[in-house]
Amino acid sequence: MSAMVKSVETTEMTEQRQAPPGLGLSKYSRRVILSTILNREDGGVGLVGERVVVGGWVKSYKGIHRQQDHVQSKLLPPVPSPTPSSNVVDLSCSEVLMSRVPLIRSITRLFLNQHHSRVIDLPTPSSLPPASPSSVYLWINDGSCTLQLQIVLDSSVHLALSQVMQIGTSILVQGTITKAPDRSKFAVQIVVEKVVYIGMVESNKNRPTQNPTRFSSAFLRLNSHLRPKSTTVESTSRIRNGLTQGTHAFFQKTGFIHIHTPVITSTRTGSGTTCINTSKHLRVKPEETAAEKAEKKKVRGRGNKIGVDAVKVAIKEKSRRIEELRRSDSNRDAIDSAIEDLKNAKNLAMELEQKKHNSLYLSMSAGLHLENYGCGLSSVYSLGPVFQAAPITGHNSQKKTADLSEMWVVEVNLAFSELEDGMKCSEDYLKFLCGWVLENCSEDVKFSMKKIDRTCFDRIRLVQLSSFKQITYTEAVETLNKVESKTFKQKVEWGLVLSEEQQRYLCDEMYKQPVIIYNHPKNLKPFFLRLNDDNNTVASFDIIIPKVGLLISGGQREERTDVINLRIDEAGLQRKEYEWYIDLRRQGKAKQTGFSVVLENLAMFVVGTDDVRDVIPIPTLLTHGI
Amino acid sequence: MSAMVKSVETTEMTEQRQAPPGLGLSKYSRRVILSTILNREDGGVGLVGERVVVGGWVKSYKGIHRQQDHVQSKLLPPVPSPTPSSNVVDLSCSEVLMSRVPLIRSITRLFLNQHHSRVIDLPTPSSLPPASPSSVYLWINDGSCTLQLQIVLDSSVHLALSQVMQIGTSILVQGTITKAPDRSKFAVQIVVEKVVYIGMVESNKNRPTQNPTRFSSAFLRLNSHLRPKSTTVESTSRIRNGLTQGTHAFFQKTGFIHIHTPVITSTRTGSGTTCINTSKHLRVKPEETAAEKAEKKKVRGRGNKIGVDAVKVAIKEKSRRIEELRRSDSNRDAIDSAIEDLKNAKNLAMELEQKKHNSLYLSMSAGLHLENYGCGLSSVYSLGPVFQAAPITGHNSQKKTADLSEMWVVEVNLAFSELEDGMKCSEDYLKFLCGWVLENCSEDVKFSMKKIDRTCFDRIRLVQLSSFKQITYTEAVETLNKVESKTFKQKVEWGLVLSEEQQRYLCDEMYKQPVIIYNHPKNLKPFFLRLNDDNNTVASFDIIIPKVGLLISGGQREERTDVINLRIDEAGLQRKEYEWYIDLRRQGKAKQTGFSVVLENLAMFVVGTDDVRDVIPIPTLLTHGI
Repeated sequence: MSAMVKSVETTEMTEQRQAPPGLGLSKYSRRVILSTILNREDGGVGLVGERVVVGGWVKSYKGIHRQQDHVQSKLLPPVPSPTPSSNVVDLSCSEVLMSRVPLIRSITRLFLNQHHSRVIDLPTPSSLPPASPSSVYLWINDGSCTLQLQIVLDSSVHLALSQVMQIGTSILVQGTITKAPDRSKFAVQIVVEKVVYIGMVESNKNRPTQNPTRFSSAFLRLNSHLRPKSTTVESTSRIRNGLTQGTHAFFQKTGFIHIHTPVITSTRTGSGTTCINTSKHLRVKPEETAAEKAEKKKVRGRGNKIGVDAVKVAIKEKSRRIEELRRSDSNRDAIDSAIEDLKNAKNLAMELEQKKHNSLYLSMSAGLHLENYGCGLSSVYSLGPVFQAAPITGHNSQKKTADLSEMWVVEVNLAFSELEDGMKCSEDYLKFLCGWVLENCSEDVKFSMKKIDRTCFDRIRLVQLSSFKQITYTEAVETLNKVESKTFKQKVEWGLVLSEEQQRYLCDEMYKQPVIIYNHPKNLKPFFLRLNDDNNTVASFDIIIPKVGLLISGGQREERTDVINLRIDEAGLQRKEYEWYIDLRRQGKAKQTGFSVVLENLAMFVVGTDDVRDVIPIPTLLTHGI
Repeated sequence: MSAMVKSVETTEMTEQRQAPPGLGLSKYSRRVILSTILNREDGGVGLVGERVVVGGWVKSYKGIHRQQDHVQSKLLPPVPSPTPSSNVVDLSCSEVLMSRVPLIRSITRLFLNQHHSRVIDLPTPSSLPPASPSSVYLWINDGSCTLQLQIVLDSSVHLALSQVMQIGTSILVQGTITKAPDRSKFAVQIVVEKVVYIGMVESNKNRPTQNPTRFSSAFLRLNSHLRPKSTTVESTSRIRNGLTQGTHAFFQKTGFIHIHTPVITSTRTGSGTTCINTSKHLRVKPEETAAEKAEKKKVRGRGNKIGVDAVKVAIKEKSRRIEELRRSDSNRDAIDSAIEDLKNAKNLAMELEQKKHNSLYLSMSAGLHLENYGCGLSSVYSLGPVFQAAPITGHNSQKKTADLSEMWVVEVNLAFSELEDGMKCSEDYLKFLCGWVLENCSEDVKFSMKKIDRTCFDRIRLVQLSSFKQITYTEAVETLNKVESKTFKQKVEWGLVLSEEQQRYLCDEMYKQPVIIYNHPKNLKPFFLRLNDDNNTVASFDIIIPKVGLLISGGQREERTDVINLRIDEAGLQRKEYEWYIDLRRQGKAKQTGFSVVLENLAMFVVGTDDVRDVIPIPTLLTHGI
């Protein structure tokens, strides 16, 4: 077994393919990852002279016409002049739109008094192609960073330059890293020596997607398969990736085990677990084939609702018919067909029998299953999707996490711990995550500051560095009641949920730091939170973050069998539905705490957006209205 | 932004609480993690004299009676003698069973002629407690490793020793690490100075769960909430955790981004994506409340099937009624109630309208969505649950992955790559994972060798170190056809799926190493795999592992718009259902490859079990029969 230790290193070494020093190779696509050029402190200058293969998608481009035929170095094409009187064809988003939509073109010309020469017509089936440029600047991105690499492609290398002059074109080229022209905003560029592959955009489709990065997020939500081409969506994806990896890093180093809790469950978590959660479950059932539907119809006869009993009667009839056929020496085919018929009915009966006993749901929380695994593995967490039948709201209003039917949640369960341990663990986790994101996604945080919310870096830093203020719910209510300068929309009264406005007031105005509110009234929290000695509050906690609001909820679990039974009754739930959960307490109960945080909320906190659709991969799900 | 870099380290340092040197502290439950004592090379001897808090669940125990009252060091209780004539009460599993089930007791006594003195009656409501022992050995485990820690608890520290003499009892104690007695199989033990917490097993429930570790896996499947108390299940959970972390480690270091692809989808992946996959989808729909059902009934009237049109008619009627009420100066309540009624009907109409257009399924594969994200982020992977309506099979037969309605799958998509890149990437991934498991889960692999399959270490090592044999499907068929020494149950013929028997023959008997079979006939593989120039095969690959069979499937994606259209037609699918997927090819296609592997299959490969239920957290799901 001693041979085990060196295994990973050995594999690593045999794997290593050749890459120029200082460059990261995407081994399995044999190209240099762009971030390893663009994210260098020197902007890539130290790599000048290296020959590399790079790939990516064209984010913008510029054709250069050389009618004056001045002598040019092939390696250093002329710097494009910024004035419109030059020969440069700069195809930014609005111009492409203008070229496609005559009305917009006319309006723009009218209002902006724009130079006619800058507006070109792209090749469409009904128009002639423009004079082909002699070389082209392409700015490409491969999804590894927010920045773009400038590449120069000459018509002597690739004749049909119009093939690459479409935003979204996929390209794989070999070339040499050279110093970019002095007046360029780039440090280096790649001068192409060989085009390996071009994936053209089929422009005759005439769609207004020629600059997805500058198109509205609303447009991209309706055309979600184009989202991954948006720099903002790419950046958000990398931040989600960072949050996921940071979560694993924190819990793995702290000795937690990742458990893959089931999604399909017969335990009604959610409306079961949180008294104040009014969301509904999503039901699951197998799809029926046409054949199955036909069989059901045949068995059901007319008008009767299908039931196991009806099928059983049918099975008896079918069996009798087979006997009859056999007795009457019917032909083989008829008997075989009757036997097949019987088999189908029997399968249906078995299926119905099983379904009768099981209503299956999509899990609304991994919490109860995690608590189960906590009674053996001690420290466990989950990171996976949970579901709810989200209420249907309008199509255009801003969406919150409550509008999602599907979200990714980090849930944590820790045995041999009490309320304060859970609060400490979640505070440390959140701070660690902030540090992780600032370290591993710094370019993307910068991008968010530029594009979405200028304050996001400061907010992440604040959470990372400030100690969290701890107050009880009762103290929070008393404090808010003393505020005379402000009238809250919702009454401040012990026993009511603190409104978002009230939470934010405490956090943003009063303490100006993250606030942990703990020991809530029992009727505001799920039945499984531990009843405090006052019999009125439970050992719960909520972490409120400045400008974001509630981010983490958790608390100590009720380990006493008699108390959990009473709490189930009080919540109006059925003890028999939670039999296994109650039994955990009879089988060697430990004190446990747990907490949960929605990954989408974490992503919104980091990125600084108010619309949850901006941080999920395929947001059209919301419009399904479930 | 320069302050970002040191952030994680800073957090780390402020977090560090005091732990004895060389010991790992579970910070948030303030106890020492048992693996940091037990997994040391010296077995913990270097820690003798340290005072620690440890917690866990009692796996077995031994009461020591001191009637002879010989003088004993409190720190070093006498070594229990292995002969039955001693005063040791050894409560192993079978004895507990015997003490509970009189018939078993009688039979056992009869056959084994067992000493009466060794069979004791546990305290039950109807029997007197046995003479309390003067001290007790407890072997506890906290889920951090497979080994158990020996702790010694004297009645002078805790009077009611019978409280802890139940398997499954949860206990948190403070004590000193001492050298274990010479004849003991342990290097160290902990002599308890203070009992912090005891979570008793409620023994009057009289259940046969007093030694879950030795109970059959079949029993644990039916009582799945007791599974996490089984050492085998704990070990498998840690291996799943290791496989998950190894997967992230490989893909993160290789520059891949983890994408959370949607579970609820209207794209019919699965039966859509694999022509040979006959599994059915699982449908999703929101749960209906009683109120909603009532509303539907009201709107529907008698016997008519509910439809949007019917609801629209109802809405008109309801609107008219409100006008009438207003005109007739009806009382406020009646109007309000009518308005509420109208609102409900309108919501229902909206819901139905949306449902009409959307049939929602649980995703059977993340593949298509990943390919979408590959067109922007280049290298992406997913790790999450996928679903199928698994066929119903008997309750007791051995279960394969095909029987699961829910499984976790690693799926990978790599832009700018071709078939050989995908094969290389998946081979490297598998080898890396083997190395990772051997390094990070070595104790658990040892445990699997002891309890489940002696060959599992060798098998993992073989996959890690051997180079994979690559043969085309056509070569495989030719090779198998030449085998004269063996007759296969299924015919070997070009165009047929290679049976499990045939795959294993190639792998286990012929090449004795992992085999990659590639370029399958197009009718055996999903429509999205790239058609080869021969027009008969596609750029697919399957990785076959000795003694395990098929583990990874993948291939190069079809990037040509015209070909993908034809392939969709050939597969009998509807182009309009894949419009967005086809459009990806018009928007700057890149050559892409992808592959997928089921985490459950990886876990079965590592652990060496043939029953998939042994490697999933909550296996009762299977019995739901969906």
